[in-house]
Amino acid sequence: MWLRNCWYVIAWDHEIPAAHENNLFSRKVLNEPILVYRTADGGMTAIADKCCHRHAPLSAGRREGDSVRCGYHGLLFDAKGVCREIPGMDTPPAKACVKKYPLVVKNKWVFVWMGDAEKANQDMLPDNFSCDHPDWVNVPGYMHYDTPYLLIADNLLDFSHLSYVHANTLGGSAEIALAKPTVEVIDTNGQRGVKVSRFIPDVPAPPYYTRFRKFDSNLDRWFVYDFLFPSTLLMNSGGRPVGDAQDDNSRAVVNHSCQTLTPETENSTHYFFQQSHKASLKDESVRHNMYNTLLEAFGEDRDMITAQFKNLSSNAIEEMLPLHFDSALVRFRKLLSEAVIAEK
Amino acid sequence: MWLRNCWYVIAWDHEIPAAHENNLFSRKVLNEPILVYRTADGGMTAIADKCCHRHAPLSAGRREGDSVRCGYHGLLFDAKGVCREIPGMDTPPAKACVKKYPLVVKNKWVFVWMGDAEKANQDMLPDNFSCDHPDWVNVPGYMHYDTPYLLIADNLLDFSHLSYVHANTLGGSAEIALAKPTVEVIDTNGQRGVKVSRFIPDVPAPPYYTRFRKFDSNLDRWFVYDFLFPSTLLMNSGGRPVGDAQDDNSRAVVNHSCQTLTPETENSTHYFFQQSHKASLKDESVRHNMYNTLLEAFGEDRDMITAQFKNLSSNAIEEMLPLHFDSALVRFRKLLSEAVIAEK
Amino acid sequence: MWLRNCWYVIAWDHEIPAAHENNLFSRKVLNEPILVYRTADGGMTAIADKCCHRHAPLSAGRREGDSVRCGYHGLLFDAKGVCREIPGMDTPPAKACVKKYPLVVKNKWVFVWMGDAEKANQDMLPDNFSCDHPDWVNVPGYMHYDTPYLLIADNLLDFSHLSYVHANTLGGSAEIALAKPTVEVIDTNGQRGVKVSRFIPDVPAPPYYTRFRKFDSNLDRWFVYDFLFPSTLLMNSGGRPVGDAQDDNSRAVVNHSCQTLTPETENSTHYFFQQSHKASLKDESVRHNMYNTLLEAFGEDRDMITAQFKNLSSNAIEEMLPLHFDSALVRFRKLLSEAVIAEK
Repeated sequence: MWLRNCWYVIAWDHEIPAAHENNLFSRKVLNEPILVYRTADGGMTAIADKCCHRHAPLSAGRREGDSVRCGYHGLLFDAKGVCREIPGMDTPPAKACVKKYPLVVKNKWVFVWMGDAEKANQDMLPDNFSCDHPDWVNVPGYMHYDTPYLLIADNLLDFSHLSYVHANTLGGSAEIALAKPTVEVIDTNGQRGVKVSRFIPDVPAPPYYTRFRKFDSNLDRWFVYDFLFPSTLLMNSGGRPVGDAQDDNSRAVVNHSCQTLTPETENSTHYFFQQSHKASLKDESVRHNMYNTLLEAFGEDRDMITAQFKNLSSNAIEEMLPLHFDSALVRFRKLLSEAVIAEK
Repeated sequence: MWLRNCWYVIAWDHEIPAAHENNLFSRKVLNEPILVYRTADGGMTAIADKCCHRHAPLSAGRREGDSVRCGYHGLLFDAKGVCREIPGMDTPPAKACVKKYPLVVKNKWVFVWMGDAEKANQDMLPDNFSCDHPDWVNVPGYMHYDTPYLLIADNLLDFSHLSYVHANTLGGSAEIALAKPTVEVIDTNGQRGVKVSRFIPDVPAPPYYTRFRKFDSNLDRWFVYDFLFPSTLLMNSGGRPVGDAQDDNSRAVVNHSCQTLTPETENSTHYFFQQSHKASLKDESVRHNMYNTLLEAFGEDRDMITAQFKNLSSNAIEEMLPLHFDSALVRFRKLLSEAVIAEK
Repeated sequence: MWLRNCWYVIAWDHEIPAAHENNLFSRKVLNEPILVYRTADGGMTAIADKCCHRHAPLSAGRREGDSVRCGYHGLLFDAKGVCREIPGMDTPPAKACVKKYPLVVKNKWVFVWMGDAEKANQDMLPDNFSCDHPDWVNVPGYMHYDTPYLLIADNLLDFSHLSYVHANTLGGSAEIALAKPTVEVIDTNGQRGVKVSRFIPDVPAPPYYTRFRKFDSNLDRWFVYDFLFPSTLLMNSGGRPVGDAQDDNSRAVVNHSCQTLTPETENSTHYFFQQSHKASLKDESVRHNMYNTLLEAFGEDRDMITAQFKNLSSNAIEEMLPLHFDSALVRFRKLLSEAVIAEK
């Protein structure tokens, strides 16, 4: 169940080698191998990593300026995927080209459009501002899953798991699971998905908050996020000492997180993420502490979801029991499913 | 081809951790993940290792008294598989439960019933007395196979292989293959299967017998066993110096063995086994020698059967050639097949 | 797409152990496990490595003279695959036999015939003379591929890849790709396939030629080969200083190569190869240098073809774009396909 007319993140900007390097970056998205490289004019291009001739990967070839020469029989493709040279032929036939994918780099995320190029619409890019913003600080993360992406989306759409999966990292109290979130549908100006808002009053600070500062009292915590097509989370979260005014963040922890899932194959997924805090904290060690906490917590998720997927794989017959936890994920899956069907 | 209304051994009693430990034992039987744990009252319970909500394994959660809390979203299940608590709900819905398997511990074997719980019938448990009997001594064994269980059953139903597979361990002479066994059908009081009796007069002692005592003469050997649904061998075997009276075991080797196969998946199997000798021998080293011989010999079987399975997998078309060796296994497979069909 | 009525190489002669050894050689061809062993009379035999009884591999058994005894239940098969002894039976039934494959050893290649034994025709053996000829010197090579054999055949049928895959080993100049080969159909006296001839005038010597001698001038190079059913290359190749007469090889490099592909399974292949030079060179180090160059170059091919196969496996829908490079391989695939269909 893949939506095609949308943007998928294929890489962090820093993963793509410099224009002069011969190291060719290739990654699979929706089961299609894609070659991404920088051009001399400072741009970036994405073309199928599969020569049109005998389907050898172009990434096993070499760069020649802004073009790539196939390492099998020497066909030369330009940055638009058009074949410019076939050894032994005067002019390549018109059919000799590889698919070019619309590509946009926005706030360090490299997006490719997997559907009809004509429908590529930049309004549909998510507002991942904190990935690259002077006021926000983070360490960019990447993780690979051997599970379908929707199981991870389920996880991101239901934060009640924080109380159990992340009791010792991001969570810290059973009250998160008890607090009922509000779920609203988003459908505005190219952005589609659900908005999930969860407020948890008067709970102890989670273990990793103590890396920011010491707290003498309980906190009011909040998680407010958009979860947008195809599978991107944009979240404001934080905690404020009980009693502090809602507009007083002087003693609060305030985070912004951008996370996105890109299906690699039916049963494997790329996961790009960062969680930012305010640059004003000016303590480099906090930045790395936060990242390590995320890595540990997201490892807890991956263990659980991978184990869940094994159970699902060995018996696809038995049905899951829908519960109140699932309000956001059921909503999102329904919207997405309708959008996938509408594309056919 | 799995019989469901019968008892399968899921573990040796000693494999299940103590009631107070948080280490949760899980094993797959007939492709179903099952959680087994001890309760405070000294009992033991078996429930599906799969939360009814999103199918996460409960074994990735934690114990709370005699209950288990799912580590994903916190559902709490009691020892009967009934959900007692769902975070954020006043009362769990009636549907919120996981399958409970009838469980019996008998002579150190932990049995689960894989069919309709209402039909669970303890008369159908095999008489595995020597697994736990003051007169008999053994070391309990477990082995994992990457083959279907019926290929191993075939092996146990035709001891002519002892002459070849186990020439240097359990066998010792070609006469075992030459001696024709009698095969009778068993169908009494819940016990179904075949009885196989093989007598081999006047043969040298097999190599491992010399660990019990030295023999100056040849032996009369016997192997008499029941092979019962679903796949359990209960065997009297031994050897007596030629000329000694049939009721004189003063210089004989006398063994009793219990072995059982439990399908893990279509193509993998759990194998539980022990071979006992009389406790009166009072030599601890014999006990371990016997076990090591069994391990070596059963490794010979596993090598052969795994190689056989590879051949069978790469060409399922060619038919096997039935020979006189196969009388017991053909009989058993036919009975089992009829029983499986009768269940539908 | 396997042709059955033809000879496939199963081994180099030296791979088969001596007649008195109990080490049994087994290899899969067209997904059939085959046992090859030497007999006391200096001959060699090939029979199915699969006992007719329960399909255990005979290679897990033991030799008894020119016979092999199954290690599972003791059936004894002679070198013709006829069962001579079944423990416990007076006479083996007529059906008790395993398939015998016609076998020929020719110039160190051990061939087996995979179709109807009655049609086995030695005229169809390729003329692999340089594998074993006093005038020619080589090191025999073997390589295993995890790809279908036809992708490797494609590679051998289009030497334009030398310019790119082997730029630093066998190739050395883009002109090889530019030179158009002539392709003729071969269909004479049992030999069927295509003849490919490619001449490349006035190019630098490839890197590995400098191991034979130093060249002051460019060379005229040639590659002339038969590519015969099922998948065997017999090639004359070489290079001669520009200006030297065509019949003057005094300063030329002259090679003869025999290479053949044997499908192991649908997606894996045995590759037997050697490239010979004139024995008159009398420098043993050249022989090993040549072999090492081949190994390195054939490793380059395997990397490329394995990567190509991955691309093909993950998307079987998109079609390849036929180009002029493919004239020989398209021709060969068509002939082979027709021959396979004609066999049905």
